[in-house]
Amino acid sequence: MHRTPIGVLGASGYAGRELCALIARHPRMSLAFAAANEQRGKTVELNGGRTVTFIATDDAPLGDAEIVFSAMPHGASKVWVEKSRAAGAKVVDLSSDLRVGNDGNNIPYGLTELRRESIRGASVVANPGCYATAILLGLLPLVEAGHVESGATISVSAASGVTGAGLSARTDLLFGEVTENFRAYSAGNTHRHLNEMRAVLGELSCDADLLFTPHLLPVARGILATITVPLSHAITDPVALYRKRFAGEPFVEIVESLPELRHVNHRNVARITAIQAEQVRRPTLVVISAIDNLMKGAAGQAMQNANLMLGFDETLGLPS
Amino acid sequence: MHRTPIGVLGASGYAGRELCALIARHPRMSLAFAAANEQRGKTVELNGGRTVTFIATDDAPLGDAEIVFSAMPHGASKVWVEKSRAAGAKVVDLSSDLRVGNDGNNIPYGLTELRRESIRGASVVANPGCYATAILLGLLPLVEAGHVESGATISVSAASGVTGAGLSARTDLLFGEVTENFRAYSAGNTHRHLNEMRAVLGELSCDADLLFTPHLLPVARGILATITVPLSHAITDPVALYRKRFAGEPFVEIVESLPELRHVNHRNVARITAIQAEQVRRPTLVVISAIDNLMKGAAGQAMQNANLMLGFDETLGLPS
Amino acid sequence: MHRTPIGVLGASGYAGRELCALIARHPRMSLAFAAANEQRGKTVELNGGRTVTFIATDDAPLGDAEIVFSAMPHGASKVWVEKSRAAGAKVVDLSSDLRVGNDGNNIPYGLTELRRESIRGASVVANPGCYATAILLGLLPLVEAGHVESGATISVSAASGVTGAGLSARTDLLFGEVTENFRAYSAGNTHRHLNEMRAVLGELSCDADLLFTPHLLPVARGILATITVPLSHAITDPVALYRKRFAGEPFVEIVESLPELRHVNHRNVARITAIQAEQVRRPTLVVISAIDNLMKGAAGQAMQNANLMLGFDETLGLPS
Amino acid sequence: MHRTPIGVLGASGYAGRELCALIARHPRMSLAFAAANEQRGKTVELNGGRTVTFIATDDAPLGDAEIVFSAMPHGASKVWVEKSRAAGAKVVDLSSDLRVGNDGNNIPYGLTELRRESIRGASVVANPGCYATAILLGLLPLVEAGHVESGATISVSAASGVTGAGLSARTDLLFGEVTENFRAYSAGNTHRHLNEMRAVLGELSCDADLLFTPHLLPVARGILATITVPLSHAITDPVALYRKRFAGEPFVEIVESLPELRHVNHRNVARITAIQAEQVRRPTLVVISAIDNLMKGAAGQAMQNANLMLGFDETLGLPS
Repeated sequence: MHRTPIGVLGASGYAGRELCALIARHPRMSLAFAAANEQRGKTVELNGGRTVTFIATDDAPLGDAEIVFSAMPHGASKVWVEKSRAAGAKVVDLSSDLRVGNDGNNIPYGLTELRRESIRGASVVANPGCYATAILLGLLPLVEAGHVESGATISVSAASGVTGAGLSARTDLLFGEVTENFRAYSAGNTHRHLNEMRAVLGELSCDADLLFTPHLLPVARGILATITVPLSHAITDPVALYRKRFAGEPFVEIVESLPELRHVNHRNVARITAIQAEQVRRPTLVVISAIDNLMKGAAGQAMQNANLMLGFDETLGLPS
Repeated sequence: MHRTPIGVLGASGYAGRELCALIARHPRMSLAFAAANEQRGKTVELNGGRTVTFIATDDAPLGDAEIVFSAMPHGASKVWVEKSRAAGAKVVDLSSDLRVGNDGNNIPYGLTELRRESIRGASVVANPGCYATAILLGLLPLVEAGHVESGATISVSAASGVTGAGLSARTDLLFGEVTENFRAYSAGNTHRHLNEMRAVLGELSCDADLLFTPHLLPVARGILATITVPLSHAITDPVALYRKRFAGEPFVEIVESLPELRHVNHRNVARITAIQAEQVRRPTLVVISAIDNLMKGAAGQAMQNANLMLGFDETLGLPS
Repeated sequence: MHRTPIGVLGASGYAGRELCALIARHPRMSLAFAAANEQRGKTVELNGGRTVTFIATDDAPLGDAEIVFSAMPHGASKVWVEKSRAAGAKVVDLSSDLRVGNDGNNIPYGLTELRRESIRGASVVANPGCYATAILLGLLPLVEAGHVESGATISVSAASGVTGAGLSARTDLLFGEVTENFRAYSAGNTHRHLNEMRAVLGELSCDADLLFTPHLLPVARGILATITVPLSHAITDPVALYRKRFAGEPFVEIVESLPELRHVNHRNVARITAIQAEQVRRPTLVVISAIDNLMKGAAGQAMQNANLMLGFDETLGLPS
Repeated sequence: MHRTPIGVLGASGYAGRELCALIARHPRMSLAFAAANEQRGKTVELNGGRTVTFIATDDAPLGDAEIVFSAMPHGASKVWVEKSRAAGAKVVDLSSDLRVGNDGNNIPYGLTELRRESIRGASVVANPGCYATAILLGLLPLVEAGHVESGATISVSAASGVTGAGLSARTDLLFGEVTENFRAYSAGNTHRHLNEMRAVLGELSCDADLLFTPHLLPVARGILATITVPLSHAITDPVALYRKRFAGEPFVEIVESLPELRHVNHRNVARITAIQAEQVRRPTLVVISAIDNLMKGAAGQAMQNANLMLGFDETLGLPS
């Protein structure tokens, strides 16, 4: 069968390598190029034993690819999206550059379960941030049904594995600094992903505030978000509500047990539960949402979107 | 110098061993006995290379000790507190049996920075839970000054190392199940420590609800609590407020940076910061509080209380 | 296509669950039963999100399976191999009961790369131990070619992840006891796998002694063996020798770089290199061999053998 | 009491910070300066909560210190040893520059238990490498008594925590690359510490070869060495031999159980056992030696030597 040529920009980072590995396993795709400027000429091994050799970004034959995944750094990605478009390729941009709430006018936000139809016809898609994916999927059923108390504050505490910070030589990410440690960062509601989350809530007519504190876990991968949602009224069976909203979704698992990182790692799924809080006066839900930050939080969702953009079955080449 | 004889019940668990190690290093204490019924006759090595041999609980010469630390399991501890009292010993009970909000009428709650004077004259002290210690210390300055919004919900997400679950042979605590994993438990506001926290807030005339979700971290020790507090009005300099409340406290560190587990592990301190949240309409503080669950969260605070009960300098034998 | 029914005994342990997961993904197999006596009636989730419900061992319909995998404990397995045979099923036994050097007269030893033809026609195969697999594959090219110095001592230091010890509630395997720790065990050449390794070396007419020290790593899975081999004469290009021996083998990777656990985990491969030691007078090779203890060291190799016994392509359903 | 002023060069690395922390806790020392050129002006927190501010190396008032610890990188240290000497300070050099087997003519090698008397009177001491400390202490009783088989090969497999590689921003030391991994390095007998180990064995008239393979562990600190020693004749009670050799040594623990990293971490001790190997024809000992690479393997042993050079009790300020 003909394989569709796919390019990867920013291929040497954690998300870039995961994209290369997904393309290598995809039954209808082939890797047109993997560009990583600082590591050009270098050959590395992907998960599963295959290898890839990086080329210089300027040498990337953008026009050879039907879709280009850009895993370039925030700020640097936008210009490469434009170059790829000019060369005739569709683009899934994994940076924050073109996301809603940032600089993404009219570009579909690639939260597949929210924007599937727009993504299907798009030439450029802005893939969501990893935290935003976990948190927004955990909020959608409540927000869309208008269950969130008006004017309330949704409090989110989330924790991510270190691959969320990328494959960069920072001493604070050394094993010796992270093992047996745990810490918050961007505390005080200053994390970059707030923009896109607030924008999506606004588009869905939710006027609640979002207060988000991310943490760094001593694990390689995975995000767990614990979300406290004040409700306008009590919900008798929150799991049923979630199951109804995500019925038929291949990559959302609504469960009655508590999601854990090991349930989702190396899989392109969000695993979610919702629990009515006891011992509080106002009706409140505790929602727990878990994803693999490199799969449903980055490369996996990007591939899910690329499948849609190419008219493929959305699940092709993705580990569920 | 004369050394005061001290006994430990439930000495084989993580808190019990930490107590034995603290007694061994204490300049004015000696170990009268270490009882651990299932491991009676067994000799184990403490941190620092010293050894201790456990005796049967029924063989413990309770009357030989001036103070008995009970690290017996919840439910089983209360009767041993009574036996120790009958034998003439003072008691620091590390179980939840006698804590405020449970069955602890008139017994001082051993949160030293809140109840120092009552502890000083007490014959029995109910040592706080580890989560309760981290969270209440993080809330005291706001609650005592009446800064918490009336009727609001304080949302707490906290994470603990596995020693918090004790040294028990549970398959869900095996290395292979915990490494590279992260999960919530007691979600929906059902954790045992809520009782004592709610009771203390009530004693301090705070009418806010508490919504608490604990998590299990892939680390051996440490608790980090991230606390979202709706305020009745904005506080310009929350760190100054905290510094004022805890001025002179030897075991509370108010910092401007974000507390991490590695800052507090193996130390008897709570390290706390408070940050005004941006991008939310109602004034809200994010408080981060870190302790070592086995030190300030258990054995260290118990020793701090014992020092007071014996008329010693409160800091004696404790690593700051 | 018709799927061959396969049974699993001892299905609740780490190897048993891995077997169930491999069967679930296999294109030509279906799970006839998964027996685990202590967990009968319990439903658990496999890697990849599928679930399996355990039945009592006595209720296992042995005759419904064409092949039974026995992951029963050492000592308890032998009788179930006999029952399965009596019921008409072929058996791959993952215990040590029937291995060469133990009680395995005439039963093929399932080190596939050494005994492929015997395995193909066998009704019972004794699957090798995890350490034995890593070490023997690392020694085969030297032993078969007679390169090991006569009467010498081969020194092996190997380290395994905790899943090698099984899913049993032992306090010494708790996260709090294993994290940030490393230790030898069975030191002094007393490990159970020595029997089968010595027997195989004997069958291959190697008269060297084997001195083997295993260690416990703070990782979930993987074995790395570092093998020092005194040679009868220098070997100019050891990697070429290894490549020739394992040419065409789908699950052996001979590399020039140093094998790491992350190269092999979740894959059914042994990854091996061999290096001439400098600064020693007698010619000596340092061989490094890495496997995933649950895949090539247990369930994966068992499946490789089952594929052969059923006349399937040896690689079917196995992640390379 | 008067405190002796002590300086630290290369103070920002793991060993440098450990030195600063040891000086801060030492009853008879005070920190004269802590120099770290790239981090000059920066204030960091030491273990135990104290802080230190780094100055530029060129600004270090070398003459103010009675002893300078140099934790400068290998190659860069030698010139600073000379400058410190010229300024009138004694020096403990933690680099390999002046060690026996390298460029260390007539400079005492600071393996305290071997060279105590030379160290006592020295103005410069070359502190041993971490691996060399663990391995040589494990070999001393056998080598000094002439028990090692003439011309034999001593095979050493050792594993170290990541702090052994220093606090440098290398992507291969990131948490995401080290967790759940294990690998050898410098395989083929090419590690830098071989020089000093071979030189010491030579000085002790041992003609055996040493074959050493180091490994990187997913732990922050600790070294465990597993040493296989062919003997000239069987030794009935090897532990007794070791106990006799190290009788009275404050920082060597000879044990009958197997040493583990958790037994030695944060302590200035080597913990050693020796076991007669079974099932081999030539008499062979398996020696296991564990140290904390930053304590007995670096800063702790340096402090032990400094205490001797200053005429202090050797154990002053050191956690045993």
